[in-house]
Amino acid sequence: MSLKVDLNSDLGESFGAYKIGEDEKVLELITSANIACGYHAGDHNVMAKTVAIAKKSGTAIGAHPGFPDLAGFGRRKMQLDAEEIHKLVIYQVGALYGFCRAEEISMQHVKPHGALFNMASSDFEMAQAIAEAVYDIDPGLILFGLSESELIKAGEKIGLKTANEVFADRTYQPDGTLTPRSFPDAVIHNAEEASENVLQMIKNHQIRAVDGTVLNKKVDTICVHGDNPESLLFVQQLRSVLEDNKIIIEAVGN
Amino acid sequence: MSLKVDLNSDLGESFGAYKIGEDEKVLELITSANIACGYHAGDHNVMAKTVAIAKKSGTAIGAHPGFPDLAGFGRRKMQLDAEEIHKLVIYQVGALYGFCRAEEISMQHVKPHGALFNMASSDFEMAQAIAEAVYDIDPGLILFGLSESELIKAGEKIGLKTANEVFADRTYQPDGTLTPRSFPDAVIHNAEEASENVLQMIKNHQIRAVDGTVLNKKVDTICVHGDNPESLLFVQQLRSVLEDNKIIIEAVGN
Amino acid sequence: MSLKVDLNSDLGESFGAYKIGEDEKVLELITSANIACGYHAGDHNVMAKTVAIAKKSGTAIGAHPGFPDLAGFGRRKMQLDAEEIHKLVIYQVGALYGFCRAEEISMQHVKPHGALFNMASSDFEMAQAIAEAVYDIDPGLILFGLSESELIKAGEKIGLKTANEVFADRTYQPDGTLTPRSFPDAVIHNAEEASENVLQMIKNHQIRAVDGTVLNKKVDTICVHGDNPESLLFVQQLRSVLEDNKIIIEAVGN
Amino acid sequence: MSLKVDLNSDLGESFGAYKIGEDEKVLELITSANIACGYHAGDHNVMAKTVAIAKKSGTAIGAHPGFPDLAGFGRRKMQLDAEEIHKLVIYQVGALYGFCRAEEISMQHVKPHGALFNMASSDFEMAQAIAEAVYDIDPGLILFGLSESELIKAGEKIGLKTANEVFADRTYQPDGTLTPRSFPDAVIHNAEEASENVLQMIKNHQIRAVDGTVLNKKVDTICVHGDNPESLLFVQQLRSVLEDNKIIIEAVGN
Repeated sequence: MSLKVDLNSDLGESFGAYKIGEDEKVLELITSANIACGYHAGDHNVMAKTVAIAKKSGTAIGAHPGFPDLAGFGRRKMQLDAEEIHKLVIYQVGALYGFCRAEEISMQHVKPHGALFNMASSDFEMAQAIAEAVYDIDPGLILFGLSESELIKAGEKIGLKTANEVFADRTYQPDGTLTPRSFPDAVIHNAEEASENVLQMIKNHQIRAVDGTVLNKKVDTICVHGDNPESLLFVQQLRSVLEDNKIIIEAVGN
Repeated sequence: MSLKVDLNSDLGESFGAYKIGEDEKVLELITSANIACGYHAGDHNVMAKTVAIAKKSGTAIGAHPGFPDLAGFGRRKMQLDAEEIHKLVIYQVGALYGFCRAEEISMQHVKPHGALFNMASSDFEMAQAIAEAVYDIDPGLILFGLSESELIKAGEKIGLKTANEVFADRTYQPDGTLTPRSFPDAVIHNAEEASENVLQMIKNHQIRAVDGTVLNKKVDTICVHGDNPESLLFVQQLRSVLEDNKIIIEAVGN
Repeated sequence: MSLKVDLNSDLGESFGAYKIGEDEKVLELITSANIACGYHAGDHNVMAKTVAIAKKSGTAIGAHPGFPDLAGFGRRKMQLDAEEIHKLVIYQVGALYGFCRAEEISMQHVKPHGALFNMASSDFEMAQAIAEAVYDIDPGLILFGLSESELIKAGEKIGLKTANEVFADRTYQPDGTLTPRSFPDAVIHNAEEASENVLQMIKNHQIRAVDGTVLNKKVDTICVHGDNPESLLFVQQLRSVLEDNKIIIEAVGN
Repeated sequence: MSLKVDLNSDLGESFGAYKIGEDEKVLELITSANIACGYHAGDHNVMAKTVAIAKKSGTAIGAHPGFPDLAGFGRRKMQLDAEEIHKLVIYQVGALYGFCRAEEISMQHVKPHGALFNMASSDFEMAQAIAEAVYDIDPGLILFGLSESELIKAGEKIGLKTANEVFADRTYQPDGTLTPRSFPDAVIHNAEEASENVLQMIKNHQIRAVDGTVLNKKVDTICVHGDNPESLLFVQQLRSVLEDNKIIIEAVGN
């Protein structure tokens, strides 16, 4: 049996006159698109366009709900109770649903963004609120979460299909969380090193944390970025390594 | 064959700590609820709660999309092109759709709010953008519009079921548009006079404009308000008059 | 020498079509007005109007900056660094400054709102960012803070005149912080009990915490509310008790 | 007597994670900076930074207030009454004032942005609301407006010093208004042609409209852009032509 993996990327993060990301280029390289839903980034115009180009490129579509904090790009912790988390996920996923219906394309998955993603990785109550929101809208949606995190557990508990996600260009702490972006060693810039890490995860379900600790990490999907020429090149190199190793690259929902 | 009419009201207009409307009380008196979708009023918490109480009271649910202008409560004209109108309606209707799915209840209709409603009454291009958005999300949705307005025509053209709406407590200009709220005679405060007008519309499809001109007006649904004790009493009086005249009060989608 | 105290209240919290507070009535009863600056509540129209009516009633004017969170009314903690706290205070105080200049009236004080106020009570770094912002705009402004909190200390350190604030209708924890609103005993509804507490603070600089612990509390200004008829009555009763005890009620800046 | 002119540019238009403009580079080439105030672009962090770098480069500082429409970048007409225009200008100019005070630098001017600028060019009531707001905050501020527009007239009427502005890279209609950006011939891409136009305006107070009509146009300040390498080169070429023609380039307030 051949090994396979999904490549996902955050898209549709432009807003009004403000442009972020090389969406059309990265869509050629990935298999699942996480589309911002207007709270931390994106707007109705950007969402419509992004769903349309993702459909055209044959990339699976997912909602990427975040905190209502455009000024902070959804990267700042907010103190919201589980009840409100549940509702803000429904709102955002529902909004993207509208564009999927208009384009007559189905939604594959939901992946929370930024601080919402990070908080839900270790806070089961918050994770559960997200998982329930996804389930309430459509039990057929796949929940993307940090590999073996509380979010994955909450998704499994409620009966959702889940996708364990790892980050090709990020390092891990001994406790399995991502090294915060404020740390100097948070990001891996070397595509070879990153690809080697990813291969270890796919083949052996293991990754080495910054202190050398070996962590068990399932990997169904790998998060990559397409903000600039460097990151696009990084994804191309990663794809080459995966292809050279006979790893099939396809959307988790296929 | 007995005559029938729908009573609709704008609901879910609270926002965060700010409360507007006696939603639970007016829901007992109406048959179709137009629920704000977070652009001109409402938020994800309010939407969730409003869908839940509308479901409990057996009132049909509709989306009430407006301009993205919380500060102006969606009552100010904005210069948006048809392309953007199309997308902002999809976004908002989609968001409410999420809450309907979560509550396992279907959505009956869409009624644009405030300046969006007024502009679409006489601007066919804008009306068409709205009608297309509604159709694109779900061709089974009913489009509410000012009786015999461009919005109704655009809905019929694309193949949507439409509902001609009149306002029980508003007066009409000779050209068939509502008298702007800034005019002294815009609002009818006398429930008897308002009820008599409504009866004329239901029975004879006619209404008298402020200058005496007799206008032809179909009426499928009547807009009422539930902001305060006076408006609630007004609706109760209207209901009594309708019932006394053997008019059946039920949701347009029934 | 006669004892004196200031009465302050949060005002200008309406937004667009949304109305909160009986501003004109409470202005007759207080000596310092904390005016919301558009981030957690208030807008440019409300600010202009509130400054105008405060001027007319002879009430001293202060800025009431909060977190940029209208949906949460500034009551939710946000994870912002000190650098950003400094800037958001400058922005909001500056904006109110514009209206004071337009009305040719001076600004007396700054009092942070909600979660910003609470966090700055115990977090010296945040308190310092606020104190510096106030000082940078105008070293003559008085900084209002929870009595003997980190905010007061930060203000004193930088050389600002400060006002120790107590809450007439709130209870205190043994560590001197306010009992959170989520607790059943957070609010004192009995005006007599509240007035007795306030008198103890003014005369003896002492207050009894919920567990009976006696806390030392300086009091320069007392926070009162004017949201509804009950709270207005509460303030009237408090004023009577103060007047009966020959306490002079006047603005701290006088 | 030597001729002189001011070069102004819109700056501080980034927002949160979104970056627009090469502010530090264009600041080296201009004499007056119009800084966005958080309504159509900019935020408190961006404003603080932009005031600081403008101070460092010795560029005169001005407020650049716009409509409250981040999604539309302030370029869409909004239907706001004169009363509200007055207040939104006070709010925004006041907010920037805060940062000027914090940096101990004075504010030179106010220039409305986008749709607010365009509407005030031909609508005297709106122009007057803006001029009064500027005057109310500080009668020493200079009001920038489209050359010989209603805004300039309103400023002169109330007693403000004004600066007639022309656009180096934009064409004019026979009625003296700017050709709308939606027209193919709205923008002049050739720096030589633009510089020649500007010289004619400075020397003869004349410009040729798109149809050949010769318009009388005073010019105190020229608007230039610094969004990308091409526009920066354009400004450098314009500066060269001005210097070759012995035109002194300095801030209007000098």
